[in-house]
Amino acid sequence: MKLEDLIYQIKNKDSFLCIGLDSDINKIPKYLLNEDDPIFSFNKSIIDHTNKYCVAYKVNTAFYESLGAKGWVSMKKTVDYINNHYPEIFTIADAKRGDIGNTSKMYAQSFFVEMNFDSVTINPYMGSDSVKPFLEFENRIAILLGLTSNTGANDIQLKTTNNDDFIFMEMIKSSKDWGDKNNIMYVVGATKPVHIRKIRSIIPDHFLLMPGVGAQGGDLNEICKYALNDNIGIIVNSSRSIIYASDNETYASAAADQAMILQNKMKVILSERK
Amino acid sequence: MKLEDLIYQIKNKDSFLCIGLDSDINKIPKYLLNEDDPIFSFNKSIIDHTNKYCVAYKVNTAFYESLGAKGWVSMKKTVDYINNHYPEIFTIADAKRGDIGNTSKMYAQSFFVEMNFDSVTINPYMGSDSVKPFLEFENRIAILLGLTSNTGANDIQLKTTNNDDFIFMEMIKSSKDWGDKNNIMYVVGATKPVHIRKIRSIIPDHFLLMPGVGAQGGDLNEICKYALNDNIGIIVNSSRSIIYASDNETYASAAADQAMILQNKMKVILSERK
Repeated sequence: MKLEDLIYQIKNKDSFLCIGLDSDINKIPKYLLNEDDPIFSFNKSIIDHTNKYCVAYKVNTAFYESLGAKGWVSMKKTVDYINNHYPEIFTIADAKRGDIGNTSKMYAQSFFVEMNFDSVTINPYMGSDSVKPFLEFENRIAILLGLTSNTGANDIQLKTTNNDDFIFMEMIKSSKDWGDKNNIMYVVGATKPVHIRKIRSIIPDHFLLMPGVGAQGGDLNEICKYALNDNIGIIVNSSRSIIYASDNETYASAAADQAMILQNKMKVILSERK
Repeated sequence: MKLEDLIYQIKNKDSFLCIGLDSDINKIPKYLLNEDDPIFSFNKSIIDHTNKYCVAYKVNTAFYESLGAKGWVSMKKTVDYINNHYPEIFTIADAKRGDIGNTSKMYAQSFFVEMNFDSVTINPYMGSDSVKPFLEFENRIAILLGLTSNTGANDIQLKTTNNDDFIFMEMIKSSKDWGDKNNIMYVVGATKPVHIRKIRSIIPDHFLLMPGVGAQGGDLNEICKYALNDNIGIIVNSSRSIIYASDNETYASAAADQAMILQNKMKVILSERK
């Protein structure tokens, strides 16, 4: 997908919501376990009920891999279903991959070609040659970890360098020139609003993928204050608080209700900017 | 596998060789493409011909994922084959995973339970809560990126902090206390011998997984000078220079020859220490 198509969709839907399909076989409604592919059945209903409120779906690969090859089948069916039925929606493989060049090239092949995702999240700890293979695909986007939403971000990302800057800031400063705003986005945790203004000062135009609203406690209005730009410039992800809104037959409509509530908040925020 | 069983095997075989199964559908002998599962057929022959020279096989997940779910089937068949036929061999999923706690827990489930690997490589950039879920499994080992063999290691790992230490050194210093030598190893690139002595001074007893000998140019004698400890304490990986030693019908015996050459060098190094 071209970045401009994502921006068009955001403005058209008054939404910058991404729904995280962290679909866990132990958490989906029990009656679905009788289906051939319970995870895909769950995702399909969630997607059918929520797509008008969101602009992106994020597939967390860990939840699929926990079921082995069968999980990869469910993941492929899920992304194919989105691409075939809702081609305007932006798809994200939340895979946090990254390795030496010849190996990253294989991961790029996996997520961009074999699985046909629009984007994949990348762990940049191994540096430029681990990221660049993901930047060689037209209309595909590498989403680099900028600053993550968890407490462990303190252990490396928030260490201070001898240039008196945070590691995550130095990483963003170098990596923004490995590609451009059309093929790089950054993950910036919604639980860390204090850092967003500094991040925006060095990458005013790049899109930010912001997880951490909902179960992890991030505040939507707070992050929007610092993160929005002229093209909106953010995608806010919520996973558990949407997809597990109910654990019975009403799960898909309950998910739609939660998605609508978040989308309405986004609409208000966007209208106040006009 | 218990660490002591790995140490016993190393001393018994006079080998600390790991063979990397970076099995690429575009590089394996062409005639194998007629088989039902060319990647598994390739791996099976490599394993049957080389197991007496090595103590571990490392499966690089990227090469399997590049084929989607089918690749995950080949990966599962490969690790099952090793576990069933050569149970003394240590298996490594070279997956470089790591995410927030609830997601890392799913990755641990995937590689330790569903796929049944003895160990998995972890990217520690997201910090302690991204690593700890991998440390909760008995007789399974998390192999954290210490210092990688690629040039991109300069971009984050080799940055200097305001404590005048490298990021990778601070990471090793903190993380060694998240578990112990029985459930944590470190990846240390064989291309960076200058740093190995410093690493050994802070983790004298942990095992190091050392890639980069062979195609990447690391020198076996040089790294052994600094890295060996009383329990040997290292596993040296070679992938491409062994498994692609020949591109025709002789590939498995050519791989065995290359593995034997490396194992002989290891035997000499070990005998000189006695």
